[in-house]
Amino acid sequence: MDDHHYMKIALDLARTVSGQTSPNPPVGAVIAKNGAILGLGAHLKAGEGHAEVHALRMAGDRASDATIYVTLEPCSHHGRTPPCADLIIEKGISRVVIAATDPNAKVAGRGIEKLQQAGIEVKQGIMEREANAVNAVFFHYIQTKTPFVTMKTAVSLDGKTAAHTGDSKWVTGEAARLDVHQYRHTHDAILVGVQTVLADNPSLTTRLPNGGKNPIRIILDTSLKTPLDANVLNDGQADTWIFSGKNVSDEALEPYKMKKSVTIYRLETLNIEDILQFLGERGIMSLFVEGGATVNGSFLESGYINQLITYMAPKLIGGRDAPTSIAGNGFSTMKDTQEMNILDVTMLGDDVKIVAEPRKDDLHVYRNN
Amino acid sequence: MDDHHYMKIALDLARTVSGQTSPNPPVGAVIAKNGAILGLGAHLKAGEGHAEVHALRMAGDRASDATIYVTLEPCSHHGRTPPCADLIIEKGISRVVIAATDPNAKVAGRGIEKLQQAGIEVKQGIMEREANAVNAVFFHYIQTKTPFVTMKTAVSLDGKTAAHTGDSKWVTGEAARLDVHQYRHTHDAILVGVQTVLADNPSLTTRLPNGGKNPIRIILDTSLKTPLDANVLNDGQADTWIFSGKNVSDEALEPYKMKKSVTIYRLETLNIEDILQFLGERGIMSLFVEGGATVNGSFLESGYINQLITYMAPKLIGGRDAPTSIAGNGFSTMKDTQEMNILDVTMLGDDVKIVAEPRKDDLHVYRNN
Repeated sequence: MDDHHYMKIALDLARTVSGQTSPNPPVGAVIAKNGAILGLGAHLKAGEGHAEVHALRMAGDRASDATIYVTLEPCSHHGRTPPCADLIIEKGISRVVIAATDPNAKVAGRGIEKLQQAGIEVKQGIMEREANAVNAVFFHYIQTKTPFVTMKTAVSLDGKTAAHTGDSKWVTGEAARLDVHQYRHTHDAILVGVQTVLADNPSLTTRLPNGGKNPIRIILDTSLKTPLDANVLNDGQADTWIFSGKNVSDEALEPYKMKKSVTIYRLETLNIEDILQFLGERGIMSLFVEGGATVNGSFLESGYINQLITYMAPKLIGGRDAPTSIAGNGFSTMKDTQEMNILDVTMLGDDVKIVAEPRKDDLHVYRNN
Repeated sequence: MDDHHYMKIALDLARTVSGQTSPNPPVGAVIAKNGAILGLGAHLKAGEGHAEVHALRMAGDRASDATIYVTLEPCSHHGRTPPCADLIIEKGISRVVIAATDPNAKVAGRGIEKLQQAGIEVKQGIMEREANAVNAVFFHYIQTKTPFVTMKTAVSLDGKTAAHTGDSKWVTGEAARLDVHQYRHTHDAILVGVQTVLADNPSLTTRLPNGGKNPIRIILDTSLKTPLDANVLNDGQADTWIFSGKNVSDEALEPYKMKKSVTIYRLETLNIEDILQFLGERGIMSLFVEGGATVNGSFLESGYINQLITYMAPKLIGGRDAPTSIAGNGFSTMKDTQEMNILDVTMLGDDVKIVAEPRKDDLHVYRNN
């Protein structure tokens, strides 16, 4: 068994905790010696032990002279827990294999330096591409201080999100809808426009068979039209943040103040860049955008989509006036469109799921606000 | 090697000639004895030898006491060629394995009967499902006397066929466009609305690296607006049939009469059912519908789509007013939509290709004209 073999296990461990470690990254660790696994660990939750701590605890005294595989460079600073680099040195690990280095300014390279100074052999860059994908949200947030944006759309084979009458229950099947709830579970916040609240009165909570974590619910609502009896204002299932324009009066605000877990923010502008800045400052690392079409159009035109999840249902709706997934003005020529890379195409029940990301060489080029 | 093994070869042979045998079905044949292949054949072109003839000729005297595998029941009637059943008997074949029986009233079961009367063992239904797929166009035509309709759409990930300005060059990539030409090659006729002619002035010919057969070009053009300098009227690459309304005057028709290979039909109605009937009567077995959106909408609402090919390009166009693939009125509720089965999802270059067909239990239910 080679380094690749053990790092793959560590990456699988990291993936199992993806979305539940915010604001920390999902990390996996494996300790091995002479072909035997001696310890396995993953970081479960911010404030709790890092992956290395769990793996070293499992290995006990046998960690001495062993190799530890970590998906992300071990920390070297005192945060909510002591530095992992110190613990690795203390437990007598002789070799550390790292997939990705930590872009966090507090760590970046210092963990590696500390280990090397203690005479430990350090190898880095094993399966780095895979590790970067696992850490995409964390790295994006550390580098931009704004949330990683995943947009979700659900359309028919002819690209409609509803019939021309507005009827949209349901476009996709049960498996796709469950998959959406898994995304809600792994995101810090979910965002919709007030039109979606008015049309569907959604709860925007995570409903999975074995439970899940609810994201903070964010409603873009320039003129404060969210009905006072809307589910998101009354069910108390999660915090709801309403972003309204600065011209909304104090009187209009008053009745919303009585609502538990509801906060209205009157923002200077409701453009996407400013909103993402605002969310980033409040520790929101990942944002799940569920539209509707106008909000999706604003995100597309802003250039701030990091990932697009498209569910395509095997049905044809037709209709010149049936709505599509991304409205707004749209781009004017084919060569101005947002180019994407398709990362994955799978069947989910009867539906097709397509995962895509903006082409890096095309990103931010068409940002026009 | 079992019957399945040889029939698979026969089906592969049939697939190689799919689309070039109209009005005959694509058929493959294999002759085998004691584990050795003695003859291979496929029906290349209407008026030429059937698959069995080619395979028997290759086998020569060794056909005696051998087994012949045929994807479709051998013919028993004198058409443009003598009956294959007679030839099989004459050559001393002792066993005939058939995938699908022929729904053609002239043949249906009589070929089998004739063989059995001659003392030949006949086995049928081997890989029948696969054979029915290969013969889908032929069987559909024999049973309905109307062409098998394949609709093609090319859309962005957000379901648009063009920018809101109308710019649509190009949505999909080179591989998808080549695939479209392969479909044109294998279809008897291609159909578009006059709006497509006015917008794009297409030639609607087959342009493949190694050549190809051009389909008959059909333009739905109620008020006879096809410009006299349109490519389809002047390039002489293929026959062009314009279907106009019955109110078009003789004077309006006059200048079109000078055009070589162009015929104008003034039809009583331009509804899809009547058009398909008209085409069927003229021996058009397969129709490739390339839109635009209004024509596609008419086909969807008519219930006469047999297969849908969707190419999805990895780009986002956006726009409330950007066109989609299927317009018209569309269905009013989600439960009224045309349910489809997805048969195949593949990557074609950077694009996704989705092949779908109407769910049989949902077909014709929403036909409303």
